[in-house]
Amino acid sequence: HDRQSARKVEFIQWTVTLLVGIFTGLVALFIDYVVKLLTKWKYNSVESSIYKCMDDGCLVVSFLWLLLFNVGFCIIASSLVIIEPVAAGSGIPEIKCYLNGVKIPNVGRLRTLVSKAIGVLFSVAGGLFVGKEGPMIHSGAIIGAGVPQFQSIAFKRVNINSYSYFRTDRDKRDFVSGGAAAGVAAAFGAPIGGVLFSLEEGCSFWNQKLTWRTFFCSMAATYSLNFFLSGIDGNDWGFFYLPGLINFGVFKCSNDTGIGCRLWNILDLAVFIVMGFIGGIMGALFNHLNKLITKYRMKHVQKKHKVVRVLEAVLISACTALFAFGGSMLLGECKAIPTVIINATNETTQDFVRTYFCEDGYYNDMATLLFNSQEEAIKQLFHQEGKFSIRSLALFVIFFYLLACWTYGSSVPSGLFVPCLLCGAAYGRLVATVLVDVLGYENHSIYSGTFALIGAASFLGGVVRMTISLTVILIESTNEISYGLPLMLVLMVAKWSGDLFNEGLYDIHIHLKGVPLLEWEAPEKTEKLVASDAMNKKVVIFYPATRVSSIVKILKTNAHNAFPVVTVRKQSQGSEEFGDELELYASLEEETIPKNAHWNLTGMIMRYQLVTLLKKRIWYREEDGRSTQRKLSYEEMTEEYPRYPDIYDINQDPHLLISDNMVVDLTPYINPCPYTVYPNTPVPQVFNLFRSMGLRHLPVVSHAGQLMGMITRHNLTHEYLEHILQERASS
Amino acid sequence: HDRQSARKVEFIQWTVTLLVGIFTGLVALFIDYVVKLLTKWKYNSVESSIYKCMDDGCLVVSFLWLLLFNVGFCIIASSLVIIEPVAAGSGIPEIKCYLNGVKIPNVGRLRTLVSKAIGVLFSVAGGLFVGKEGPMIHSGAIIGAGVPQFQSIAFKRVNINSYSYFRTDRDKRDFVSGGAAAGVAAAFGAPIGGVLFSLEEGCSFWNQKLTWRTFFCSMAATYSLNFFLSGIDGNDWGFFYLPGLINFGVFKCSNDTGIGCRLWNILDLAVFIVMGFIGGIMGALFNHLNKLITKYRMKHVQKKHKVVRVLEAVLISACTALFAFGGSMLLGECKAIPTVIINATNETTQDFVRTYFCEDGYYNDMATLLFNSQEEAIKQLFHQEGKFSIRSLALFVIFFYLLACWTYGSSVPSGLFVPCLLCGAAYGRLVATVLVDVLGYENHSIYSGTFALIGAASFLGGVVRMTISLTVILIESTNEISYGLPLMLVLMVAKWSGDLFNEGLYDIHIHLKGVPLLEWEAPEKTEKLVASDAMNKKVVIFYPATRVSSIVKILKTNAHNAFPVVTVRKQSQGSEEFGDELELYASLEEETIPKNAHWNLTGMIMRYQLVTLLKKRIWYREEDGRSTQRKLSYEEMTEEYPRYPDIYDINQDPHLLISDNMVVDLTPYINPCPYTVYPNTPVPQVFNLFRSMGLRHLPVVSHAGQLMGMITRHNLTHEYLEHILQERASS
Repeated sequence: HDRQSARKVEFIQWTVTLLVGIFTGLVALFIDYVVKLLTKWKYNSVESSIYKCMDDGCLVVSFLWLLLFNVGFCIIASSLVIIEPVAAGSGIPEIKCYLNGVKIPNVGRLRTLVSKAIGVLFSVAGGLFVGKEGPMIHSGAIIGAGVPQFQSIAFKRVNINSYSYFRTDRDKRDFVSGGAAAGVAAAFGAPIGGVLFSLEEGCSFWNQKLTWRTFFCSMAATYSLNFFLSGIDGNDWGFFYLPGLINFGVFKCSNDTGIGCRLWNILDLAVFIVMGFIGGIMGALFNHLNKLITKYRMKHVQKKHKVVRVLEAVLISACTALFAFGGSMLLGECKAIPTVIINATNETTQDFVRTYFCEDGYYNDMATLLFNSQEEAIKQLFHQEGKFSIRSLALFVIFFYLLACWTYGSSVPSGLFVPCLLCGAAYGRLVATVLVDVLGYENHSIYSGTFALIGAASFLGGVVRMTISLTVILIESTNEISYGLPLMLVLMVAKWSGDLFNEGLYDIHIHLKGVPLLEWEAPEKTEKLVASDAMNKKVVIFYPATRVSSIVKILKTNAHNAFPVVTVRKQSQGSEEFGDELELYASLEEETIPKNAHWNLTGMIMRYQLVTLLKKRIWYREEDGRSTQRKLSYEEMTEEYPRYPDIYDINQDPHLLISDNMVVDLTPYINPCPYTVYPNTPVPQVFNLFRSMGLRHLPVVSHAGQLMGMITRHNLTHEYLEHILQERASS
Repeated sequence: HDRQSARKVEFIQWTVTLLVGIFTGLVALFIDYVVKLLTKWKYNSVESSIYKCMDDGCLVVSFLWLLLFNVGFCIIASSLVIIEPVAAGSGIPEIKCYLNGVKIPNVGRLRTLVSKAIGVLFSVAGGLFVGKEGPMIHSGAIIGAGVPQFQSIAFKRVNINSYSYFRTDRDKRDFVSGGAAAGVAAAFGAPIGGVLFSLEEGCSFWNQKLTWRTFFCSMAATYSLNFFLSGIDGNDWGFFYLPGLINFGVFKCSNDTGIGCRLWNILDLAVFIVMGFIGGIMGALFNHLNKLITKYRMKHVQKKHKVVRVLEAVLISACTALFAFGGSMLLGECKAIPTVIINATNETTQDFVRTYFCEDGYYNDMATLLFNSQEEAIKQLFHQEGKFSIRSLALFVIFFYLLACWTYGSSVPSGLFVPCLLCGAAYGRLVATVLVDVLGYENHSIYSGTFALIGAASFLGGVVRMTISLTVILIESTNEISYGLPLMLVLMVAKWSGDLFNEGLYDIHIHLKGVPLLEWEAPEKTEKLVASDAMNKKVVIFYPATRVSSIVKILKTNAHNAFPVVTVRKQSQGSEEFGDELELYASLEEETIPKNAHWNLTGMIMRYQLVTLLKKRIWYREEDGRSTQRKLSYEEMTEEYPRYPDIYDINQDPHLLISDNMVVDLTPYINPCPYTVYPNTPVPQVFNLFRSMGLRHLPVVSHAGQLMGMITRHNLTHEYLEHILQERASS
């Protein structure tokens, strides 16, 4: 019977995982499809106006067209974010926090999904220098949180009993990490990279089964997307040949003889390492500037009226449109379209060049970058065999860099991956062009596509500082395993050089929000600290039997998530029991442990349990004795998961007001065996326990069983620990 | 200062990681190169004899040549294993145990590396149905264990002081897992697969930095191998285009019109799933037979004289030679060599067909499989556009299956991957041939190479039951990301159908050796058990001050690795102190906790610490007081790492014999803050703590701080827990 129900749970888990993968793939498909439609509409309208006006001299009208589209789309995107503020940005910092164990309100709601998925359509189609990948990953995570919880508000009616398996935070987190992986897989066609992403950003405990399920989820997303893309685009239903939404094309270089040359060799590696170093510094500068802008924005924009936020987005959009139009018209140079079509990829590459203001057989290099979707522009930089002028590339890098930096963090859904890749690819292509045309570096006829890729990786790596997952994502999306070594080296060097100055952009935003994120390891030197140095000595405690009035008071005056339950040791006997006389202490007034009390830890009780007990009126009159208290089953206790009521929700209950002689016996509901540490346990060991087991609170207990203090997430952040270290050093 | 030394440690770590990777790559290169040389020598000699004898009718002589080579090589391989028995087998079970936290003697020694690396040359070249990949992975792990430990016996002289950073088991394990990953990376050209392999087989705690370093190690191995291979084979020094030792060639199918067709489509998936199911059953049967053979071998072969083991290997070798020769000469059929060379890969594929006993333009299908290296035979099955007859394939599968099953576990170094892939590929090709020729299954002209690959994956998956790592290894070594979905599905189904019958072959061998391996999760139903059900109540304890004679006695009468140190609680006062009067208890005689003793856990002390204290004569005379005891520094305590002396090594010390009034004060050396659990902690929670933190012993302590029992690895094995559950159910 037990085994059968375990099988059933497993079957449901796999089915739900499959659904999460498929839905994520479909959402990604939807976003991609609509963005393409909107972009096409916009560029077709503007282009036809340009061709008309090139003769008539009414280019201002074309510009106004572009401005209208961009600003209009941008207002839609921004308004959606005003409705649901969590939908702003890429969403990856929020997922990182969630997987780290910090809950950010609304981050996993259906409304957020809708705002984000619709909003990103318009922010991308509106020509802003933002990507749709981050929002896709966020969408995947929300789907992961939502599908298994038929309890989420939207689906409350179809709540099935067997789904109560999924009522714990740990289960939910597993699905969220699966959904995030599926998002990466769908966005980049990188199922392995997706798994590694969710491990790198979230997990601390590696579990074979969970990873296998995450991989299954990624694969489901990749191939359901692939199935529909192949069917819709290629009309080849049932075949799978379009791996992902980002397709960097086939890297195939050719030298003068037309025979395939090597993509890179050992001499290029030295150049790549230098490029990685510079890319890391560019990324660090980007992060620094964005941090300044974000701080300014937090002070001066976000506190004002909502319309100010929309206006900022409109301003960014207008500037971007001005750069796109002005840059293309005034700064572009005409380059010859290469005539020899050497491989099949090139044919399509040439379809996307823009020829405004150029003679036949020539294309406008700046317009080719700016009047295409960012993905197409990246492909141009990777595979275009024609030239880009040094001036165009340099100007493009500078303006794009500044505008992208301004955009990220404003009030629109905005991914970071594709803009960074595009800016970096232009930088890489610039390096290749300078090397060949100016410095005359000739090494078996270098392949500029590789340099563009390396530039893209170095800048992106410098901004986000991801390691193995980014390497694998890039290997998978280029579909070229031989780029493994250069990509890894460049990302390593970029991370290293960026880390000299500041941390990754996601971490910067997390810290600006003041979220207590736990790093991978305890900071240096903390091996000299022990648990009692870091712990919180002001602890709010409960006795096994506590008066209702005390519970209400305690719950109202603090926001702790869990409370230790203690008994007083009777020193007259050898062994302790939880005697009834402890009810005497029920009307606890002092909320901190007095110096000479000797309190033995009995267990922990959660805030939601206390509120639920009160809401269900589980208590007894002092005079009736504790055996008269009604028992609450596990199902009743957890039925409101994941949105437990707060103490203020049940404030109206008249019973609570006249409850002086009401006592709650907590004994059946406490968790009697939490993990604990000794006061002299070194902080790194505490940190490891906390991080590995995904704890939120950890009682510190003496060798004699006495409660000494509590350690929470806040006590283990790098900031707090370094603060303690400094205090120590100064005293 | 601290920061600088932390940087220095990190720099050394990365350098050592690089060296581990490069050395692993070089060892793999060496193995591959010599195997190729020996194999070439063998086949050239035998072949020239065959061509001579086909006319003269002296084929018996050719057979004797083959027999001579095979048996000769096999004797060398087997003798090396006699010298170092741990070198037998693939080594993966041993690595799995090591990474799980169980030490198997000699598994990481230099002598094992030499025996294994040389032995596998001859067992593979000797025509046995064994692979060289497992031994390569084992070699990588040994290099990982060895390079950072300049202390290992062989390098004892060059012991540098700064290397003492690497004197903990945890550090060592990190390098071993890096080395194992590098081994996979080198063997299969699969750096990502390597990382996942070492995670899947070993890690329980995911750490970003460690994984990134493991990846670096894999990459170093892959690309150092690549560098030398490209240089030696292609004379293209400085280029990197030969990704790994196993190269499955390019999958490129073509239909009748010569245009590339799809490798697979959605209809094929259904067939693949059935193939996966059957492959899983084939694997389970393989495991079952091998288990029976291994049990028989443990009873009847391994207990006898060493020569018997060599003789068994010789017998296997002779049978294999007979099958190879007889099969080729008598059972093969002649098939037409395809004339249309469609893509470049085919040219080289046709170079390796064997044409004995066939007319011009025809080849002998059985000889093509048996008179080539196994890797080449796999490539033939994957890419040969000519036919293999159904009879040949069926006979090949049956004989190969049985011989490979007999071989694995005998006294030669023997990998499992390549034989399983070959046998499975033949099975897959057989399925494709039957489908097309017999059943007339026509689905867009199916590509038999894909079926062979799927067959290979299904059988290998059925035998080893690996999940994500195997999928990624196969994706990487086929260099074809579009095989992701079918490979994943097939491996999933194969694992599932195999798991219905028994466990993976590596696990079977680990269990036959009686190693207490911890699984990923606690078994089902154990949520009803608590720590006090599973714990060992017979505990050997120490007091903070213990007589030397007691220590010697205790160490001699048991093999525990760590001991709890306890004090007796004084019940007259509120707080406890560790008073000097505890020395009265120093001459502890009873080794189990008496019913009514009230012992407070003070900390843990390790066996090696006790032995080292005795060896260094750290004690004091009872009459002199504990302050006269000399202090031992951390460096002195750990200087003999990793080979600490045993109590029997210092037995001769005359001081130990006349030591009735000698007492050791253990206080400075105990670990005062081990992880502990409460007696009523549910077993799954205990299991998670134990597994995540990589513990070897876990004291169970009451809420009042009293030591109740100890939990070790043995108490948490599935066997033990299921035994307790059964006892419960029956009582």
